[in-house]
This record gives sequence, C-alpha cells and structure tokens, in this order.
Amino acid sequence: MSYSSRQNDGPLDSLIRALAGLPGLGPRSARRIALHLLTNRQKAMAPLMQALEQTAAQVRICTACGNLDLSDPCRICTNPQRQQNTLCVVAGVADLWAIERTGAFKGRYHILGGILSALDGITPDMLTIRPLLERLAGVEEVILALAATVDGQATAHYLSDRLQDARPDLRITRLAHGVPVGGELDYLDEGTIMTALKSRSRV
Amino acid sequence: MSYSSRQNDGPLDSLIRALAGLPGLGPRSARRIALHLLTNRQKAMAPLMQALEQTAAQVRICTACGNLDLSDPCRICTNPQRQQNTLCVVAGVADLWAIERTGAFKGRYHILGGILSALDGITPDMLTIRPLLERLAGVEEVILALAATVDGQATAHYLSDRLQDARPDLRITRLAHGVPVGGELDYLDEGTIMTALKSRSRV
Repeated sequence: MSYSSRQNDGPLDSLIRALAGLPGLGPRSARRIALHLLTNRQKAMAPLMQALEQTAAQVRICTACGNLDLSDPCRICTNPQRQQNTLCVVAGVADLWAIERTGAFKGRYHILGGILSALDGITPDMLTIRPLLERLAGVEEVILALAATVDGQATAHYLSDRLQDARPDLRITRLAHGVPVGGELDYLDEGTIMTALKSRSRV
Repeated sequence: MSYSSRQNDGPLDSLIRALAGLPGLGPRSARRIALHLLTNRQKAMAPLMQALEQTAAQVRICTACGNLDLSDPCRICTNPQRQQNTLCVVAGVADLWAIERTGAFKGRYHILGGILSALDGITPDMLTIRPLLERLAGVEEVILALAATVDGQATAHYLSDRLQDARPDLRITRLAHGVPVGGELDYLDEGTIMTALKSRSRV
C-alpha cells in the first residue's frame, strides 16, 4: 500500500493525502509523518487524534471578532479589562496570536479573514468589512495591523477610506515601519531602510 | 488561547503541541496547520480525522517482514507472484515504498527497523536481525538495500558477516553505487565519482 502514485487502496493512502494537503507539507513529508504516526501510535498518533477531536468539538469562532476560542464571544471580547475604545484590525487569527504574544496591546480585535488581492480574486465583500463598520460604536481608534506588503497596504488604504466615511471622527493608525529589532542594516532591503530614514526620530 | 508560550489552556494548545512533535514540523508550522484545520473543518479537518481513525484501526505491522498493511502477513509476503528466493533488506517502510515505486523488484522484503549507529546507540539486538536469520529457508539471495552512508555501510557489512555465518551458500548483494540518473558530474561529490569510475562498465 502507498508505494506507488498510481495505487490508492486504503486508509494509509487517505491519511497521506490528507496530510499532504496541509499548508507547508507535500507528498514526501506526508509519507514521513504518516510512518512516524504509525510507528509511534501511543506517543504521537493517539495524542494527535484526541487533540483533533477535542478541538473540533470545543473550539468555535467568535461571532464578534472572528477569533478562535472555547467560548463565543471569545475571552478577549468579553474581558472587561480590555479597552473597549481601541480596535485592532488583523488579517487572520495567526496575526492576533502574534500581537497577543507581545502583551503590548490591551484593546480588542477584528479579524478581516484575509487581505484584498486582485491576483487571488479577494474582493471587499469576501472580508468582514461590513461587520467591522457595524462595530464602531464607542470605538475611538482603529489600528490597521496589516502586512507591509503591496496587498496589505492597499487593504489598509481601502479600509481607511471606508472607516473615515463611516466615522469621520475616528482615529485610524497603522503599525510603524522601520528596522526590525535586532536587524542589521546590511541585510535589510532598500525599502525598509528608506522608510526607517524617513520616519527617523530624535534619540 | 495559544497566543503565548506561557499559556496552556485547551485543546487547541494540545493540537499545536501534537503537531509540533511530528517530524519536520515546529511550533510555527504547527500553528499554521492548526489554523488551517480549524478554518477548513469540512475540507481538511474531517478527512484527516477520518483517515487517522481508519488507519489506527485497520493498518497493522506484518509479523513476517515488518511492512505496514491492512493484513498480517502483508500482501507482499502472501503474494504468490513474488519470488520466494530473494529477500531485500531495508532499514524502514519508507525504503520499501521507495523500491516498490520502481516496480523493479519482484522478491520479498525484510525491514530492519533502523540502522546500526554508535552515535544514536542503536545496537544489533535493537534491529530485527535474529528474525532475518530465521527467515532464510528457501532464500537464495539477500539484497542489502541500505543507505550509502557510513552507518548504512557498516550495517551492511555486519549483516553480511552474520548472514554468511548462518548460510555460507547464500548470495549476498548490495545496490550499485554510481552517478544518479540525471546527475551532472559537476555537482557530484568525489566519493560518488570515484566509486562510479571504479565500477565502470563497457558501453
């Protein structure tokens, strides 16, 4: 079973196919992982199956912000300690996790569900822009924490226009661009150095 | 949940930890895969869970050769079309699959379960060498299809001695070394070129 690419005769092939479809994995790494699971049933396969089952059964999407949590609304949306007047717009849950790991943000989030992209055919109605515009009551600042890519910045520009139209008094901000902490100038691209130079500050 | 490395509060963290322990994956790729699974429950999570369950329930290890299959003994061991007089010794199931994909081998296999390694502390009693010696009835040739690494060749040498002791009339062979098909000389190491030169054949 599973030796050839022609054959397809059983659960091991289905497993390899399911694994190979995951982001970052291909047929070769999927075969390696499937073999690892089969030869480590107690240590690797059983915990993975249990975690998958529990995750599938218990984790839900927050209808307010789009975050993944055990409760809906999520613990960030319901936390009274979090500022209600600041909303941080991110493309996906991975970005929310990245910001939460810093511990530097005390407001709430809004997950767009992607980035506008002409190439990938992602249009405004495919993102949670309307729900965002309906969440602005009591919000004073919206931080557009989107990628510093062409698509990310185009999305930020579009959102900024829509938000300003809906609430002219809103403070709309974006993450600073510049030299990453620990970054050596020699290894940075010209665009980053140029931006860092333009946004230079007094020491 | 799962934002920080300090927190550990639920099934999503368990899932990320289970994924991060798989070969070739780390915390970052595990987070990415977990998010992909959660946002594609029907298309990615359900098929993976089903394949895992079926694999865990149905796939067993062949007590004759060590192969993974739905039946024990496996379909290669029980296939009357396969030559009973030729045994191909491989380190693991992945190598068996690699050879089966060529379609060039019509004998049966014996899976060692690893390679002798002083560094990793793998000793002869940790491999299926005794079962191999007990499978030699009716066998005329044993092909040692082991990696062309120092450990692989040391294992082949050790096995060759043990096999010859057990059955002096046995024909013991190994895979040819040389220039890989499609390989350019310029990119090959000296050891391979030297071996290919020594084992040169008439055109």
